[in-house]
Amino acid sequence: MPQQSAALSPMEAFGPDHQEQAAAWFRTLRDKICAAFEDLDGEGKFERKPWSREEGGGGEISLMKGRVFEKVGVNISTVHGHFPESFAAQIPGANENSGKFWASGVSLVAHMRSPHVPAVHMNTRMIVTAKGWFGGGMDLTPMFPEGHAQDRDEFHAALKECCDRHGDDYYPRFKKWCDEYFFLPHRNEPRGVGGIFYDQLNTGSWDADFAFTKDVGETFLNAYLPVIRRNMDRAWTAEDRERQLLRRGRYVEFNLLYDRGTTFGLKTGGNTEAILMSLPPEVKWA
Amino acid sequence: MPQQSAALSPMEAFGPDHQEQAAAWFRTLRDKICAAFEDLDGEGKFERKPWSREEGGGGEISLMKGRVFEKVGVNISTVHGHFPESFAAQIPGANENSGKFWASGVSLVAHMRSPHVPAVHMNTRMIVTAKGWFGGGMDLTPMFPEGHAQDRDEFHAALKECCDRHGDDYYPRFKKWCDEYFFLPHRNEPRGVGGIFYDQLNTGSWDADFAFTKDVGETFLNAYLPVIRRNMDRAWTAEDRERQLLRRGRYVEFNLLYDRGTTFGLKTGGNTEAILMSLPPEVKWA
Repeated sequence: MPQQSAALSPMEAFGPDHQEQAAAWFRTLRDKICAAFEDLDGEGKFERKPWSREEGGGGEISLMKGRVFEKVGVNISTVHGHFPESFAAQIPGANENSGKFWASGVSLVAHMRSPHVPAVHMNTRMIVTAKGWFGGGMDLTPMFPEGHAQDRDEFHAALKECCDRHGDDYYPRFKKWCDEYFFLPHRNEPRGVGGIFYDQLNTGSWDADFAFTKDVGETFLNAYLPVIRRNMDRAWTAEDRERQLLRRGRYVEFNLLYDRGTTFGLKTGGNTEAILMSLPPEVKWA
Repeated sequence: MPQQSAALSPMEAFGPDHQEQAAAWFRTLRDKICAAFEDLDGEGKFERKPWSREEGGGGEISLMKGRVFEKVGVNISTVHGHFPESFAAQIPGANENSGKFWASGVSLVAHMRSPHVPAVHMNTRMIVTAKGWFGGGMDLTPMFPEGHAQDRDEFHAALKECCDRHGDDYYPRFKKWCDEYFFLPHRNEPRGVGGIFYDQLNTGSWDADFAFTKDVGETFLNAYLPVIRRNMDRAWTAEDRERQLLRRGRYVEFNLLYDRGTTFGLKTGGNTEAILMSLPPEVKWA
């Protein structure tokens, strides 16, 4: 039975009961998204693959290769242990705690068969060290930025509505954070048309921050499914496919060169298959 | 006219005359390799694309997409300027010199059309900060390690012969260095079947170190062309191609996650096109 957060100290609010609630929610969200994606795809089915981590905890990969979704991976994980010393310095509160941490989250990347359907990324997580916080967000990556003004605008409108329910400055702050984070300096290019990104969210109310994080997760399908439906039946040419494969190269470059979750995970002994699930199924470089 | 190195102090040996000699040699080697590759390919022709660097110097990309070579890029560059402060700390002698540097080199990566022909990488370079040194090496990456014992053995034999002409411990030291460097910790896999890798080579004799570096460059064609010829006419299946595309994913992972030349170059404002020339033309991830 959940404890009353109001009676808890800031750090007790990130204790076992709330950890359990958050982890359960990430799993529920995973199930909901997978069901909706299978339904929309009509052919593909997710395959599940559990993994465990030597130091503690583990997760489950769900991977689908379908008719509409060329490759979509959804990973849930709930892990605990100690960060290596070299990384503890980079994580708020980890130094005050001998690197001890607990983390749970869901993350998702979808690469679509049609070059007309933008790729998408979504992630929400709760982290506990000597501090505790939520993080997450989602962003949209059309292959042809020029043809997706409506997709971009409606995706952002759904995110703004969600953010506005929780904090007046959330949308502008988290949109800006996303634009800054998903940027490829060596190409001087944004990864896509943005979205929202937030990290180290701890307003002092675990309930409020968890409610926002749940709302972000629930907003995902509302924001992305219309983008798929609007574009999935449009015809495409071999040239469109070629452009898509080249654009996907940028996704790989971002994830392997800059994405903190990816480089951090791989360099701290995370589950390689779960982490690199985000890479596109087929890619070209000129 | 080259100066007599014997009369030069250790750092004078890395001065303008020898810089010019080294840069000219890297260009000569580039021309020799490109000519041999065009000859062997029989169809493809290298396209040249010069680039320049705002702070000083520049280079030239040579790119060929042919019948045997699916994509081979050769880049020469001679650049000078100042390392950003954050990087100077990692470069020998750069801190003693306000980050000032001069660097020249040739680097090459070949991705072959046939899954039976191993990919190859070769690089030689001379660097000057408050210190001066040579570096380089080459390594072979078969797509199917199980079928390439002869390729591996003969490639290594050619490198050993070259190394043995210059130092008794060169081959074992530089082979080990290569094995350690071209390794993917997150996969617990070597990148290929190795070769040699050396860096910060300065024995006190510029002439001797330059002679070794030239010999490494000249050994490249002797070591690699037989590997191509032995394998290029073997038939392959769609399954072989699929395995090749998946193996190439490892090459991308290594280059973007770990390769110092790549990450260093991209993060210090190097020429993106020249640096990422090393990426395979087509890749898959499962």
